[in-house]
Amino acid sequence: MAIYKHLLLALDFGDDQERLIDHAVSMASVFDARLTLAHIVDYMPAAYGGEVPLPDDLQMDALLLDKAKGRLASLVAGLALPDVDWRAELGVPKHGITRLAEELEVDLILVGSHGRHGLQLLLGSTANGVLHLAGCDVLAIRVKDGD
Amino acid sequence: MAIYKHLLLALDFGDDQERLIDHAVSMASVFDARLTLAHIVDYMPAAYGGEVPLPDDLQMDALLLDKAKGRLASLVAGLALPDVDWRAELGVPKHGITRLAEELEVDLILVGSHGRHGLQLLLGSTANGVLHLAGCDVLAIRVKDGD
Repeated sequence: MAIYKHLLLALDFGDDQERLIDHAVSMASVFDARLTLAHIVDYMPAAYGGEVPLPDDLQMDALLLDKAKGRLASLVAGLALPDVDWRAELGVPKHGITRLAEELEVDLILVGSHGRHGLQLLLGSTANGVLHLAGCDVLAIRVKDGD
Repeated sequence: MAIYKHLLLALDFGDDQERLIDHAVSMASVFDARLTLAHIVDYMPAAYGGEVPLPDDLQMDALLLDKAKGRLASLVAGLALPDVDWRAELGVPKHGITRLAEELEVDLILVGSHGRHGLQLLLGSTANGVLHLAGCDVLAIRVKDGD
């Protein structure tokens, strides 16, 4: 019985990216599972000052999304895995990741989990949000806080 | 390279116990890892009405702890795994589990994760607490909410 068939790695392009990808690749190999790398370009409606986005904001979103797509495509191209893909979207990370997981019928989400100190507490909130929202299993991969 | 060497499964003896144990055993087999089953008997100082526990409360704690030890020993005896052990302690579950994980040099904690509805939100808080406190990776295993 396959324990997990499709893994989704949530990436925020932080310092720990390489370690997270290595870990996800190892896990995908052990489980003989598909792997999708995903990045959600953080969409912040508050920055628009209202319901209707300004043209400049839309252009910035499109640029960030294009940049994310390029990074993911490049990362995936460098992996020695047969069944690996990537997805980039605009949105709130915890919602985007869990929505993608449902769409792709993922059975395990992998997400980096930071410590409890200062800025790391904020950065860690995606892991927390995904844990609450996900309909599948979630592996929180502990990344060091640089201490 | 071994991805995980020692798994700790946090059990609350709930309805999903069998599924959680099956999952943990599969994971331990895949990773060729040790497995420890752990239960923390929830210690509630508030029930004592003060700093000093009453003799009856202490006796109740001892009884609950003995019962938990018996259940874990019986569960472990029924598993077809060579390297499996159990631990039972008194304490706050999220703290007890993360403390045990450190003491046993566990590299992956497995914990059941409930949904977001009503009572399940409260039950799920151990997973959330463990995620924040753990110094190692945490796998939240989604258990159904009976809906």
